[in-house]
Formats: sequence, structure tokens, C-alpha cells
Amino acid sequence: MTGEASRTSEARRDAVFGRWVVFSPARSRRPTDLKSHAPANPSPAASPGAGGAPKPSCPFCHGRELECAPEIFRVPATPEPDAASASPWRIRVIENLYPALRRDAEPPAPEEDGEGEAAPGERAVVGFGFHDVVIETPRHDVRLWDLDAAGVGDVLLAYARRVRQLMEHPAVKYVQVFKNHGASAGASMAHSHSQMLGTPFVPPTVTTRLNCMKEIYERLGRCSLCEFQSKDILVSETQNFSAIVPFAASYPFEIWIIPRQHSSYFHEIDKDMALDLGSLLRTMLAKLSKQLNDPPFNFMVHSAPFGASSSCLPYTHWFLQIVPQLSVIGGFEIGSGCYINPVFPEDAAKILRELDC
Amino acid sequence: MTGEASRTSEARRDAVFGRWVVFSPARSRRPTDLKSHAPANPSPAASPGAGGAPKPSCPFCHGRELECAPEIFRVPATPEPDAASASPWRIRVIENLYPALRRDAEPPAPEEDGEGEAAPGERAVVGFGFHDVVIETPRHDVRLWDLDAAGVGDVLLAYARRVRQLMEHPAVKYVQVFKNHGASAGASMAHSHSQMLGTPFVPPTVTTRLNCMKEIYERLGRCSLCEFQSKDILVSETQNFSAIVPFAASYPFEIWIIPRQHSSYFHEIDKDMALDLGSLLRTMLAKLSKQLNDPPFNFMVHSAPFGASSSCLPYTHWFLQIVPQLSVIGGFEIGSGCYINPVFPEDAAKILRELDC
Repeated sequence: MTGEASRTSEARRDAVFGRWVVFSPARSRRPTDLKSHAPANPSPAASPGAGGAPKPSCPFCHGRELECAPEIFRVPATPEPDAASASPWRIRVIENLYPALRRDAEPPAPEEDGEGEAAPGERAVVGFGFHDVVIETPRHDVRLWDLDAAGVGDVLLAYARRVRQLMEHPAVKYVQVFKNHGASAGASMAHSHSQMLGTPFVPPTVTTRLNCMKEIYERLGRCSLCEFQSKDILVSETQNFSAIVPFAASYPFEIWIIPRQHSSYFHEIDKDMALDLGSLLRTMLAKLSKQLNDPPFNFMVHSAPFGASSSCLPYTHWFLQIVPQLSVIGGFEIGSGCYINPVFPEDAAKILRELDC
Repeated sequence: MTGEASRTSEARRDAVFGRWVVFSPARSRRPTDLKSHAPANPSPAASPGAGGAPKPSCPFCHGRELECAPEIFRVPATPEPDAASASPWRIRVIENLYPALRRDAEPPAPEEDGEGEAAPGERAVVGFGFHDVVIETPRHDVRLWDLDAAGVGDVLLAYARRVRQLMEHPAVKYVQVFKNHGASAGASMAHSHSQMLGTPFVPPTVTTRLNCMKEIYERLGRCSLCEFQSKDILVSETQNFSAIVPFAASYPFEIWIIPRQHSSYFHEIDKDMALDLGSLLRTMLAKLSKQLNDPPFNFMVHSAPFGASSSCLPYTHWFLQIVPQLSVIGGFEIGSGCYINPVFPEDAAKILRELDC
């Protein structure tokens, strides 16, 4: 591969989900020209006079805590209220006011569930589960990557702490941690926040991922994410994490942040690791925002399911996936599960690597 | 289940893809109030004076055939040119001018491919494949469901004929037939058309579907789609086909049209079946357009892969999936592969069943 000009179409399959992706550079402009046409959320911080004032209509702003669903825990602004916002808290974890799954529903019985999960075919269970929100900052005008590395690290530690709490519930099989940024990426609130859903079943992509990584481990004797061959797809590295554009990225400028040491569970992250990850995540989000014109995006944590047997830990390796929303999903993608990506990972990685942020 | 008012959240798993879907009616308005905010393509036929005239800038209109990529075959307007359009053809199947996969690339060698498909792990192959377009009408102002049943049937027969041609190529493993209607559903041209991609690999959802249906067949002794229990999810039936809102629909108002007799391959459809399917598909598209305010939509044909062993034919059953685009896909869906649907299938089916079209 000698450069973007000479590239022709290629189909690639990845070693984590086993997905085929079609790379078709001819269908797009040059990778450097790819921008979001619908910026997510022009930074209010850039508007003169916006300051740190709460937005009157936003229940996630400090001072309006009583309009939210119940708080689960908060990270206080120690030793004293944050100067810019005068808020007594820096992070709040609360219940979602419009939960997709309900914590007050009857959880599926362990026996019924054990059999039901295994038995194939149609199945219906009550919509039991947990749907929580992490308010990442008391300030309406601050985006996640406007925080410093320690601030982002504290958000990650809040995710991990809440995941550990949810893990204690015997009916919760998995917790999907995710962030939607921008309305077209699914965010219904502009104030910076993330969410997590604790589900009474193991979600489909988790099953697919574990099956694929297991097959590779059994046949090749290695974890799919412990080594990657090519420096061409590396964007940045810290002591504990690598940020790459994956070899078979489904989406243009998709980024994966992967622990360099084998680790199955995100929620076991410690304070030093969280600070390191916070620094790298912050940089990656700033790079995507700068390169792609503040695109709507999602990020998702991919971890091992609770109660995974010790035999599967050698091949499960958690990571964080960032997906900027630049292209439309059509019938080919919905029907086949196969994505068409106009930007080769090596080209996206080079552009992001060279970008100063 | 006594009616929409009493519904609470429920999680359901389907018997075809094995996907979990969360039904969460509390997060939406009433099912009857759900409409598209961005109509796909307000019918030009409704504008006075639009008539059957070609649009000067559209290469899919009759009279501009030379601006398209090469034609593969056409369905002539026999016995004489269509009166309204004066076109000598009714349907044209052409190459895509901007193909995602290239028919002139070197196909993967059978040996290499046979081993490579089976071996797990990262893999890259040249972007060989076929990407074709089916122009469904010579008239710019006609939507697929404006055609009569025989007209839609002829489009379906054109799909089947082209799939049979592509099946002859030894390196083509699957053909994904699909239609994107409306820009936000992925259509780059407003003129009514469908597409198909012949791929040198079996796409992920096909593998997942076959594995799921196989497991059910082996454990329960029946094809997942040969019988469904509940009349509550039925929208309409013809001699040969049933239209249902599937038990665990991923998307609100999703419809599946399923042959009532067991059949593995869409491309074996005959003229009578195509006429019958054309009639039902036309009605379903008209119902969705009327109920949901002309939403952008996709439809996809799910068939068996070429060269499937005879042992898998008893559990593969082709069907056509219609997905109106009404909601945004966020981080939960991308991360978990699990969808949140605000409308229960029984409610959507009742609304569509009672709608006069």
C-alpha cells in the first residue's frame, strides 16, 4: 500500500467481531475532505458571554437537581465548590427519567432464565433492567473533552463504580456503557452525559464477539487484541493504552482504545489507568472534533459479561470504541450486517496521528 | 395483552436472528402518533403539471440511458412504448456507476477462499464483486407502489433473474438485494430504484441467521418461519404470502413478508408468485407511506447463500424485510446489537391491518 491515491476496493474481516467491511475509496472524496455536514453541538463555550451559567431549561445543570430522577451517587467538588460553576458536585450518576428497562419490574427468575437463555427460539421476558445517566459536568457549556485528563478519568471511574454496583444484582448479565453526542447520534439532551443499561440478557454483539475471539484463541493460541501487527493503524499510545483505527473499521475514522496489557473487565480499571485513559480519550475526541467538524458521535465500552467462566477470560479483552456519525446506514448494511467504508484505516490513522491536538 | 394502554416494558428474542429487542412504549407517544418528521420524497406526481416528463438532470429517466453505466438487461414496454412515458422500456438493470465492489477486480481464488473463509482472524481480499442497479420505472415521478401489482411483480422478477445470473459466477457467495427510499435511508438518487451487491463472502447477518435457524430446527424440529403462533402480528395474507410485524421487530412498524410454503431461495420465485408478492408488497408500502407520513425506508431480501448444503435447506426460509426509518440509532444499539423499539408489534400490526389502502 503506497498511499491513498493508489488504493482500490478491498474487503476486510476483523478478528474481534468477525465482520466483513468493504473499503471503497472511489465512492468518496479524499479522506481529508470528509467532514460532518451537521455539527453536533457547536460549543457554547465559544460564544462570548455564555460563561458557566446554567441553562434555564436544562435539568442536568447544577441547581436543578430536583427536576431529575433520583440520584445514585455524586462525585463532590472537593475541597470546595468548583469556582467556574459554583456547583457542589462535579459528576452525578442518576436514574434515567425515561428508562428503556425498569428497575422496579420483577427480574426474571434464575432458573427460568438459565434455561431460557440456552433454549433457542422466541422468548419474552418482562422489561427488567437498569438505565442510568452519568452527568459528566455541572456546566452546560462544557464538552467531555473540554475537561482535563483527571476530569475525564473521574468520569471513567464513575462508570466503573456504577458497573460494579450493577454487577451485584444477580439478574443483570451485562452493562452496556455508552455515550451519544449530538441529536443525530441519539442524544436527546445537549448537556454532556453518558448512559448505561444493565440488561437481564447477554446482548447479541457480546455473544458474537466472544465466539469470534474464542475461535481465534483456540486455533491460533492468542487473544485478538493483545497484539496487532501494523504500526500503520496506530494513532497514539500511552503507558497503558493504544488508540488505533481498527484494521477492518466499519465506520470512517472509527477509533478503538485498547489496554496494552490483557484485561477482560473495564470495571476493574484503577485510578492510574483511568487517568491515563482519560488523557487519551480526551485527545482522541478533540482530534475527531477538529478533523471532522464536530461530528455527532457515539462511544461504547466493550467488556466481558458478568459471570463469564474463567476459561473465557484469556480471550476477552475490553476496549472502548468511538464512532463518528458521518455516513448513512442503508439497506445493504441493515440486510447484510456488512458495512461500506470509504476511508482506509491506514489513511484515517495517518490523518489523526499527524493532527495536532 | 389487553391493549396498548396497559403495556409495560418487555424484552423479546426472535427465532430468526436470535436478537434481543427491548419494547419500551413509555418512551414514545402513542403508536398512532408516530410519524416521520422527514418525509422521504414528496410525490412529484402530486404536483400539478409534473406529468410523466423526464427530469432534465436524472440519468435514470428514459432518454438519458447513455449517461448511465452499461445496461445488463431491460424489460421492454411490450407490445408498444408505455403511453404515459413514451419509453421503450419498463425496467432496466444496469451496473452501478460508483460500485462498492468491482466486477473487473481479480476474484479470490477458490482454494484460497475456501480456506480463508473457514480460518478465523483478520483477512483482506481484493474488492471483487458486483454492484448493480434496478431502475424500476422510466418515469421520474412514479414510486414503486404507484405501479400496479403486475408492475411490482415484474421488478421482483428482474431481481430474481439478475440473482440467477450472478449465481453462475463461482466466486459470488451471496447476493444482497435491497432498496433505499429517501436520502436519510441511503438513497443518493430520487428516481425509484433498487440495488444488489454480489459479494465474495457470506455476509455476517446471513451466517447469524442460518446458525440461529439451524439451532431451532435441530432442537425443536421445525423451521422458524413455517409457522407463527399469533394472529395478533398478522397484517395481511395472500394465497402465497403472509405480511407480519415480527414478534421481536427491531424497528417500529417493521414488516416481514414471508412465503407461506417453505422455500429457501428468493430467486426461484415464479411469475405467479411474483405477481402475488408484488400485490402484497405494493399494499404494505402504501400502508407505511399513509400511516407514517411517507417515511424513508429500506427493504431487504433475506435468502439462502449459494452453495448452501442440502442439509441446511429445511431450516432456511427466505423473506423480505421492510424497515421504515423513524428512529435514530445510538450507542446502545451500536454497542450491544440490541434495539429499543417504542411500538409493540401487536399494536403496529393492528394499526396497519385496519388501515385502508
